[in-house]
Amino acid sequence: MKKIALLGATGSIGTSTIDVVTSYPDLFQIISLTFHSNIEEGSILIEKLNPQYVGVGSKEMEIELSQRFPNIAFGVGEVGLIKAATLDTVDVVLTAVSGSVGLKPTMAAIEAGKDIALANKETLVMAGKWVIEAAIKNNVNILPVDSEHSAIFQCLEGQKKDNLKELMITASGGSFRDLSREDLKSVTLEQALKHPNWSMGKKITIDSSTMMNKGLEVIEAHWLFGVDYDKIKVVLHKESIVHSMIVLKDGAYLAQLGASDMREPIQYALTYPTRLPIKKEKEFDLTQIGQLNFEAMDFERFPMLKLAFTVGKKGGAYPTVYNAANEIAAAAFINEQISYLQIEQLVQRAVENYTETTEVTLAQVIEIDKKTRTIVERWIKEEGRL
Amino acid sequence: MKKIALLGATGSIGTSTIDVVTSYPDLFQIISLTFHSNIEEGSILIEKLNPQYVGVGSKEMEIELSQRFPNIAFGVGEVGLIKAATLDTVDVVLTAVSGSVGLKPTMAAIEAGKDIALANKETLVMAGKWVIEAAIKNNVNILPVDSEHSAIFQCLEGQKKDNLKELMITASGGSFRDLSREDLKSVTLEQALKHPNWSMGKKITIDSSTMMNKGLEVIEAHWLFGVDYDKIKVVLHKESIVHSMIVLKDGAYLAQLGASDMREPIQYALTYPTRLPIKKEKEFDLTQIGQLNFEAMDFERFPMLKLAFTVGKKGGAYPTVYNAANEIAAAAFINEQISYLQIEQLVQRAVENYTETTEVTLAQVIEIDKKTRTIVERWIKEEGRL
Repeated sequence: MKKIALLGATGSIGTSTIDVVTSYPDLFQIISLTFHSNIEEGSILIEKLNPQYVGVGSKEMEIELSQRFPNIAFGVGEVGLIKAATLDTVDVVLTAVSGSVGLKPTMAAIEAGKDIALANKETLVMAGKWVIEAAIKNNVNILPVDSEHSAIFQCLEGQKKDNLKELMITASGGSFRDLSREDLKSVTLEQALKHPNWSMGKKITIDSSTMMNKGLEVIEAHWLFGVDYDKIKVVLHKESIVHSMIVLKDGAYLAQLGASDMREPIQYALTYPTRLPIKKEKEFDLTQIGQLNFEAMDFERFPMLKLAFTVGKKGGAYPTVYNAANEIAAAAFINEQISYLQIEQLVQRAVENYTETTEVTLAQVIEIDKKTRTIVERWIKEEGRL
Repeated sequence: MKKIALLGATGSIGTSTIDVVTSYPDLFQIISLTFHSNIEEGSILIEKLNPQYVGVGSKEMEIELSQRFPNIAFGVGEVGLIKAATLDTVDVVLTAVSGSVGLKPTMAAIEAGKDIALANKETLVMAGKWVIEAAIKNNVNILPVDSEHSAIFQCLEGQKKDNLKELMITASGGSFRDLSREDLKSVTLEQALKHPNWSMGKKITIDSSTMMNKGLEVIEAHWLFGVDYDKIKVVLHKESIVHSMIVLKDGAYLAQLGASDMREPIQYALTYPTRLPIKKEKEFDLTQIGQLNFEAMDFERFPMLKLAFTVGKKGGAYPTVYNAANEIAAAAFINEQISYLQIEQLVQRAVENYTETTEVTLAQVIEIDKKTRTIVERWIKEEGRL
């Protein structure tokens, strides 16, 4: 029986995780879970899963839920996340929270010796160096949940590290992949939220369209697999059937492919190295799909992808600035405070505005994250919607 | 330094093997080689590679070459093949001979404790049961050289045996993939020899067009990977970029892909589990290729593929009859003694003509192989070209 802490239980990954967990009740148990604000859905999950501990987004939620579920312990915010992730009985922490909030509980869980099933890109984007160091020190596995990283992880199984030539991450291109930069000037929120292949949360759907998501994945892959940025390629693959590939020294490619179903990488992160059938599996027939297409990625069309390699190579807190600026900008776009192209402009400006001269500590990175948010928020207030 | 016996040095696989071997002179050495009849090319290889021992196809060749190369030992026919494969100094035997002649030297090499890099399908088709038993008993690796089996082997690395759901072998469809059965009535030898993707020997090019080659690969895969016939699928993939795939229990596919270059699987069989660059690598850019297509395989269009599953499941000497009849029929087509569709008719008839009631021994299989050839030769003589 694998005992799981699920951080971000009401989001898209959280929901898929609960599908997986409840499909194998003899194998998995949710010990603790957290959710930020969706108290209705959260209450249903508490009733269904009967966890020992629940982390919530506010004091008000804690009071309300404590009355309703007197036998369950509750906690609020960061404290709640960390507590949920470090309970003695927990074996593995699935971090499905969105954004930089995932970092601290993940670090705490690693230091408590918990394995990590990582769906939160920002943890490695901000603190890859420290997270990987801590994982090695505490003999903890970090198992990727992102479909791309899970694909690479699966392809790398059984290969000697030295056999690897390149990683090749596939990108669907997002909702605006067929639009020119000129076309982007007039796109709406509603249009941006229509991802061609995957049904996901709002933030990640926007990030897919700007290629910020792919940029974060590049940085995540750098840390997760210890691969230089020059050896990480991105290829446009509109069908999202090939989830990613590796290229080996003898020129052979290994690719992982399958249905667009997040339950597969989630379940594999929980059952690794064993594989079990996905219950009520989506039908997948390659001959029905018929055709897979691959195109070179246009870095001019997607400047956020280009910028990911720049900030990744610079290292330090640059990726943090890149991510923090985007979190604020994407949220402002979702709240219709700014136009679509302002997301890119704000991220670009934040990165240009930041200079790092000496090596930073993890504490400084967290400070720079906060500071970047404040600055970008101020810019948005000053500029308004352009 | 890996010391190699190369059986079938002047054929297509032999030539690619020599490319690989000579590209890494510090890693590989050809200790012995054999060739059947191409004395001109064979002499060039002897000069170039300076082997200790050479097996040739006839006494006349032996006499001529012994005079030319007095310091090299020669042997003839089966004796020469077995001797070349079992020399004390040999580490690995690459069996690139075509047809059932590969069986005896391969078995002898296994019994002598040599690893096998297997490019000869017929060895496993005829004697899979005994070859695999002997390999286990003698603690010998059988490393596949066929691009499809190498692909599956590469995908399976690092996967627990129990994770596997299915093998999925890709088929280019061969030279007549776009013709109907009606069209096949009037095709010529010249047309049959034009393979759309691979440049190979005549026999295997004909076998690709009849799907006999894929049928033999299905039976080979059954033995090599210990997988039931119900779990071996064949999918039409005209580009031959994906060399084959595996499907895992959780629905994930792993695929191996790359250039149509036999040096990759040959080299990997010789360097496994290490990978090294292919010298003067063919350029391969997935975004230049752009598109990969997959179609369901039509078993009515390709009855030899359907028949492979039938004879495979029946077991015993049925696959041997299937293979032997085809060797005679394909050769007769290449010699323009019969028409294209007679190949299928003769194979079908030979399988229908054969009945097995008790378990056969390896010696009996070898007898049945010979007997089938005699019968099919007689049929061809009786019928002539239809």
